[in-house]
Amino acid sequence: MNHDLKIGTYPFIVEDFHSDFTGKLSMHTLGNHLLNCSNLHSRERGLGIGVYNGQTYTWVISRLVVDFTEPIHKNEVFLLKTWISKVYNSFIDREYEVINNQGRTTGRAHSVWAMIDTEQRESINLTEVHGDTLINAVYDYPNPMNTKQGRTKVKNIVPCFDYTAMYSDLDINGHVNSIKYIEHAMNMLPIELFNTQELQRLEIAYAAESSYADRLLFYREEIDPLTFYIEIRKEIGEVVCRCKFAFKATSNN
Amino acid sequence: MNHDLKIGTYPFIVEDFHSDFTGKLSMHTLGNHLLNCSNLHSRERGLGIGVYNGQTYTWVISRLVVDFTEPIHKNEVFLLKTWISKVYNSFIDREYEVINNQGRTTGRAHSVWAMIDTEQRESINLTEVHGDTLINAVYDYPNPMNTKQGRTKVKNIVPCFDYTAMYSDLDINGHVNSIKYIEHAMNMLPIELFNTQELQRLEIAYAAESSYADRLLFYREEIDPLTFYIEIRKEIGEVVCRCKFAFKATSNN
Repeated sequence: MNHDLKIGTYPFIVEDFHSDFTGKLSMHTLGNHLLNCSNLHSRERGLGIGVYNGQTYTWVISRLVVDFTEPIHKNEVFLLKTWISKVYNSFIDREYEVINNQGRTTGRAHSVWAMIDTEQRESINLTEVHGDTLINAVYDYPNPMNTKQGRTKVKNIVPCFDYTAMYSDLDINGHVNSIKYIEHAMNMLPIELFNTQELQRLEIAYAAESSYADRLLFYREEIDPLTFYIEIRKEIGEVVCRCKFAFKATSNN
Repeated sequence: MNHDLKIGTYPFIVEDFHSDFTGKLSMHTLGNHLLNCSNLHSRERGLGIGVYNGQTYTWVISRLVVDFTEPIHKNEVFLLKTWISKVYNSFIDREYEVINNQGRTTGRAHSVWAMIDTEQRESINLTEVHGDTLINAVYDYPNPMNTKQGRTKVKNIVPCFDYTAMYSDLDINGHVNSIKYIEHAMNMLPIELFNTQELQRLEIAYAAESSYADRLLFYREEIDPLTFYIEIRKEIGEVVCRCKFAFKATSNN
């Protein structure tokens, strides 16, 4: 397969009703698009959620890093490109490129995914299940971005938000949707930041799944006025995910 | 303009990550699609959000009724059709038809919209501003469905949910997004209902706007095991919106 065929390209438009209050594509909306692209790209290459050897398998995201150099505004069309850059045991690296309506790359993202069986929720050896189909889909081109995630240890012991997972948080597996954590975590950031700055980078590492009625406690740490860590834990202390949000000053400030 | 040109038709697919935990298109996801279609349809006909006579105007939804005869499942493609069926003073009636991948009409919706200026938030006389452009866009075909909304008076004086509006709730006007009320209200329904029944009808009437940090109190009334009223009020008692959700028993129960 040549490189062009290994890259999936998907068009989007920032709908009026999908932008945030500043008129820009929000990080959690982009997150949803990234997940959808991943899904379409896998499915188109015979690597989708499905039944293999009599068991049902699904993709789960383990890490995501997003870098934005420019925002995308409402009513703008943009492209998302995605490809699998690496396969190792139970994991794949998946890359994304955000291309604006002038053809400029305005964002990049890097993610790590595993495939698990829906019964035991245990990961599988990907090359054993998918063999050449997966190997042939790999485009060995790591995204030119910092894919490392900082150590996001939150020291604060007082939660800033106490939330019980509800119907609209759940995905088809009955767990809280990976992107819903980003949405809830962003609600913990100072609202003024969205007005005066731009969200430049998101890092999220998923540690455990959570389910309906799970009580989720959000802990926030302000590293500096533009950088925040948010850790989401279950009531019993188990970490569900850790995120880092970094803003940059916008040019008009 | 002939009738075909007055109807906008938009294709969608129920993404894995956009279905609810039962694998079906959720009412709030459909709601987002309905709003997007409305927007596209208006814009394509020169009736979009924009500046007229030096003032900026935007559409606001006043009422929405959705009837479903069959659910739409994940990975299914479907079409949404929309048209303006009536113009009267400050309001338009907008109709929708949901068509599944076998060409069957599986849902209908009816909405009422006003156009307001973004400064005073006052509605305008639509024919004065839009004149023939709007009149010519009307397709005088009311949806064959019950568009009446029942009186959704909730007697319960104890709120079931106390929520403060956050970043991700806000639309580009800085108000809580019309569809977010539906999402939050659906979280107040018994989760078992989604497993064992199907949501058949939604009615929502919007009474007031709410903004960032507004405290919203949710009041629930169970009319019968399949019918719920949810009223959302501000702390000061002002009603923000009233919804009714009606489920039907599914065939496999």
